[in-house]
Amino acid sequence: MQRILSTTLPDHVGETVTLAGWVHRRRLLKSVAFLILRDAGGLAQVVVTEPHSRTWLATLTEETVVEVVGTVAANPAAPAGVEVIEPTVRLLGEVAVPPPFDLYRPGLTATLPTQLDHAPVALRHPARSAALRISAAAVAGFRSTLDARGFVEIHTPKVVASATESGANVFAIDYFGTPAYLAQSPQFYKQLMVGVHERVYEVGPVFRAEPHDTTRHLAQYTSLDVELGFVTDHRDVMSVLRDVLAGMLAGVADRAAVPLATLGVEVPDVPAWIPAVHFTEALAIAGAPPDEPDLAPAHERTLGEWARTEHGSDFLFVTGYPMAKRPFYTHPDPDRPAYSNGFDLLFRGVELVTGGQRLHRYGDYLAALAARGEPVEPYASYVEAFRHGMPPHGGFAIGLERFVARLVGAANVREVTAFPRDLHRLTP
Amino acid sequence: MQRILSTTLPDHVGETVTLAGWVHRRRLLKSVAFLILRDAGGLAQVVVTEPHSRTWLATLTEETVVEVVGTVAANPAAPAGVEVIEPTVRLLGEVAVPPPFDLYRPGLTATLPTQLDHAPVALRHPARSAALRISAAAVAGFRSTLDARGFVEIHTPKVVASATESGANVFAIDYFGTPAYLAQSPQFYKQLMVGVHERVYEVGPVFRAEPHDTTRHLAQYTSLDVELGFVTDHRDVMSVLRDVLAGMLAGVADRAAVPLATLGVEVPDVPAWIPAVHFTEALAIAGAPPDEPDLAPAHERTLGEWARTEHGSDFLFVTGYPMAKRPFYTHPDPDRPAYSNGFDLLFRGVELVTGGQRLHRYGDYLAALAARGEPVEPYASYVEAFRHGMPPHGGFAIGLERFVARLVGAANVREVTAFPRDLHRLTP
Repeated sequence: MQRILSTTLPDHVGETVTLAGWVHRRRLLKSVAFLILRDAGGLAQVVVTEPHSRTWLATLTEETVVEVVGTVAANPAAPAGVEVIEPTVRLLGEVAVPPPFDLYRPGLTATLPTQLDHAPVALRHPARSAALRISAAAVAGFRSTLDARGFVEIHTPKVVASATESGANVFAIDYFGTPAYLAQSPQFYKQLMVGVHERVYEVGPVFRAEPHDTTRHLAQYTSLDVELGFVTDHRDVMSVLRDVLAGMLAGVADRAAVPLATLGVEVPDVPAWIPAVHFTEALAIAGAPPDEPDLAPAHERTLGEWARTEHGSDFLFVTGYPMAKRPFYTHPDPDRPAYSNGFDLLFRGVELVTGGQRLHRYGDYLAALAARGEPVEPYASYVEAFRHGMPPHGGFAIGLERFVARLVGAANVREVTAFPRDLHRLTP
Repeated sequence: MQRILSTTLPDHVGETVTLAGWVHRRRLLKSVAFLILRDAGGLAQVVVTEPHSRTWLATLTEETVVEVVGTVAANPAAPAGVEVIEPTVRLLGEVAVPPPFDLYRPGLTATLPTQLDHAPVALRHPARSAALRISAAAVAGFRSTLDARGFVEIHTPKVVASATESGANVFAIDYFGTPAYLAQSPQFYKQLMVGVHERVYEVGPVFRAEPHDTTRHLAQYTSLDVELGFVTDHRDVMSVLRDVLAGMLAGVADRAAVPLATLGVEVPDVPAWIPAVHFTEALAIAGAPPDEPDLAPAHERTLGEWARTEHGSDFLFVTGYPMAKRPFYTHPDPDRPAYSNGFDLLFRGVELVTGGQRLHRYGDYLAALAARGEPVEPYASYVEAFRHGMPPHGGFAIGLERFVARLVGAANVREVTAFPRDLHRLTP
């Protein structure tokens, strides 16, 4: 008999069905035992009255994997108004030791480090798995938005000959005896691919040897990268980003309604026009001195509150960051060359996206590297492509874990990452 | 004026439009010049008669990026029956040097190494970019097939504490002073995530320090990984794989019709039931001695021809590979324990997919490692998860580049990989 998921039980009242899943919890009463079964759909209540089955159930440990064949009965007092009665329960996967913490409680009481040490078990908790399902739904929305706009998905090298984002925070690797590095971003490759497909995106891992322990940095995270050609300036890029964010949140609302409900999360609106302030205005709003070269996390928080209060928006663009603080490939603002055509997007007061217009002329790359006193040689194969005709272009990168953490209200990106990697963590 | 793509020109006859793209080719005649413009949609013919524009066009190099504003006119002799007349041409991105090879010829005449050295330019050739678009369409079909079947997308660590597929062919990395490795596959993680979501997939890079130069191996490739729980045995996995292949090819047919036409490729049918032969039969069909432990490439070619002739199928399952040749997590055939519940899928005589049922009991893992004389310690965080209740499960991995190469008839996977990594190649 074809197995069904617990979510479809209400459609099968009066029928005999097969369920399978994990023993989430047992309640052993005198004349009856309740087995709460957890599967990919959710929870189902199984009522065991037959004495031998009750005795056997009493010996099982939580997280044992079982198959249940039984009859679906309506019971207004049961979850979703249905339960499974007169079951035959069969063992599919035994448990060697009890779980290191209770998975059936509303929240995991174990500390985050303990949860991460036992991630394969901790992630089974409905709150942890819900966040990962929301993450998958957000990525699906990202892709469908871009697919509909003619973007082509690409896969670029993660092992590279030189660091992309600056010499720091890069992992070294022995590549057949040659020194190489893990890619800190697909930045150079996505730009080169604008020359091929005009509009590209990539969903993939990026690597940062972050020497600090923070709640929002990981040594590996999933970067949602976009790059598009034939833009007028960074505002065309911001317009695509606005649609992408709306598409990600629509994807979450459409595909992850149950996980959202599990976490009690409401999906925010993305305004048709996300408010945007120039960096110089942002400093003033944040109460920072006008000669600050960058925004500190505290400034970003203030700006997030301001956007909420003044514009009713969870999102805020800050444009025109000083050139001195942006990478060498950044396009300057033609009218104020000390400022860039680069932007950040703040989501609820945290930097979520960095983007902007890039240089597209070969001569501009040579000049930009020279002005920073950087040699061309490490970037040779990148810069070479700009000798062969590139359109004005720009793009952005969204940190997936940071987006999900902010969306579900997680204090630490590790709560929404299956197997985080950081300064102290290489397993599981 | 909103820019349009060349593909939509036939919808705009009589209108003034804006195009933008690369100067693919120029034909400079006495009283007229033809500018063939290449954009993400394809090629467009622009007719330049005004003397100053003709003179300027004569000075341009191929691959210069331009914007063209002109009137769309019907001309049955022009490509797609339309051309752009009375154009104003504006420079968007200049060229510093001519391309190292001609991009306007039907095929690239440069050798593959030369193409790879200049990948950002070579990939602009319609034949090269078409293969990459087919690749993107195949991945979209992979995901949509699995999304419709309740699979959840995951992202797993690419930096791991120990080798996954055996000690060989692994890249070492300095992880904050600790030795670590690049993941050879997401095998362990996708299995662990079956305990969380039941059905999972991942599209991501995997890394193999292949010491040999072959036409079908890369040091980094894109692996399409699937794993599902609550299977009876490997045949449930093969059934999902059949649907996934059909979905990938449907994705290609739907989303990449123009690239398919560019390459003259017809999408093969996936039979409702892909023929399957046991390993022992496969040896007999291939004319190999019955005590061979594995299939050589020549055997696979013979089997591919046999499947074509006997079953009219481009696809063939070989099941029941000897346990001795499969990884320790492989589930044995309960009836013939020297053989496995593992399979390969051959596509046109080349191994494209490896998969099978896995062990799911903790005790079986300990026994399997002990039987191979391998210590448990390097696999501790993996094996630990099996102490906590895992369902019978299995999965498979498809090599994306190999799939696309076989589909488009490329002799070398490097022809369908944007920026390949191998023993000799770390740039661009």
